[in-house]
Amino acid sequence: MDPDAVAKAFVEHYYRTFDSNRQALGGLYQDGSMLTFEGDKIQGAAAIVAKLTSLPFQQCAHAISTVDCQPSGPPGGVLVFVSGSLQLGGEQHSLKFSQMFHLIPTPQGSFYVLNDIFRLNYA
Amino acid sequence: MDPDAVAKAFVEHYYRTFDSNRQALGGLYQDGSMLTFEGDKIQGAAAIVAKLTSLPFQQCAHAISTVDCQPSGPPGGVLVFVSGSLQLGGEQHSLKFSQMFHLIPTPQGSFYVLNDIFRLNYA
Repeated sequence: MDPDAVAKAFVEHYYRTFDSNRQALGGLYQDGSMLTFEGDKIQGAAAIVAKLTSLPFQQCAHAISTVDCQPSGPPGGVLVFVSGSLQLGGEQHSLKFSQMFHLIPTPQGSFYVLNDIFRLNYA
Repeated sequence: MDPDAVAKAFVEHYYRTFDSNRQALGGLYQDGSMLTFEGDKIQGAAAIVAKLTSLPFQQCAHAISTVDCQPSGPPGGVLVFVSGSLQLGGEQHSLKFSQMFHLIPTPQGSFYVLNDIFRLNYA
C-alpha cells in the first residue's frame, strides 16, 4: 500500500477520533505500544487511553498543517510526522504541536500505532 | 544499549557535525536512507549530503530544546524526536524546528540513520 495514502487516512482518522471520542483511540494501540506525551512515557493501550482521556481539557479541535511519511520498520510499516495546531474549548489561542507515529500493519490488513511521540511547539 | 543514551549521544554528534562540517554527515546515512526536508523527499547518503550541503546558508548553530526517544523497528533500533532552534549566520532571529530520526544498529556496533524528517515550525 502507498505510504502516503496510509499516512493521510491514518491522520484524518486519528485526529477526528481524538476530537470526537477520545476513548475510541484505544483501538489504534496494542499492549506493546508506547506514547511519549510532553516527555511522559506511557506503555500499553489501556494506559495510553487513560492518559489521553485524562488530559485537562474536554473539547478540542486539531487542525493539521503538514503530514510527512516514510516507510520503515517491518514490511508495510510507515513513519508519520505531523505538524498542526490544537484549539482547546474556551481558549482563544491555539497551540502548535508536532507529533510522530510509527504504524505497523496488522494481520487483518489494518495498522496499529507502535510509537507515538507528542510535543507542543513552544514559541 | 539504553535508547536514551543512544539518542542523547546521536543528537549531540549529529548537530555538532551539522554545524561544523556538514559534509561529514554522509557517514551517518546509507544507500537506503531517506530524508524528507520541508516536504522534499531525498533518498541515499550521497543525495542527502548533496541536499544538506546545498542549503542556502553557510554558518548555522542548532540549539536543542527536547529529545524524546523510543525503541522501534529491528532489535536495537531507536526513534528520536528532537525540537530546537536553528540560528543562521548573519540572521538575528532563530528558526524553531522539529525533526525525527529512525536509527538502526550496524554490525559494527554503531548506528545509521534510516529515516530523517525535518520541518520548520511556522509560527
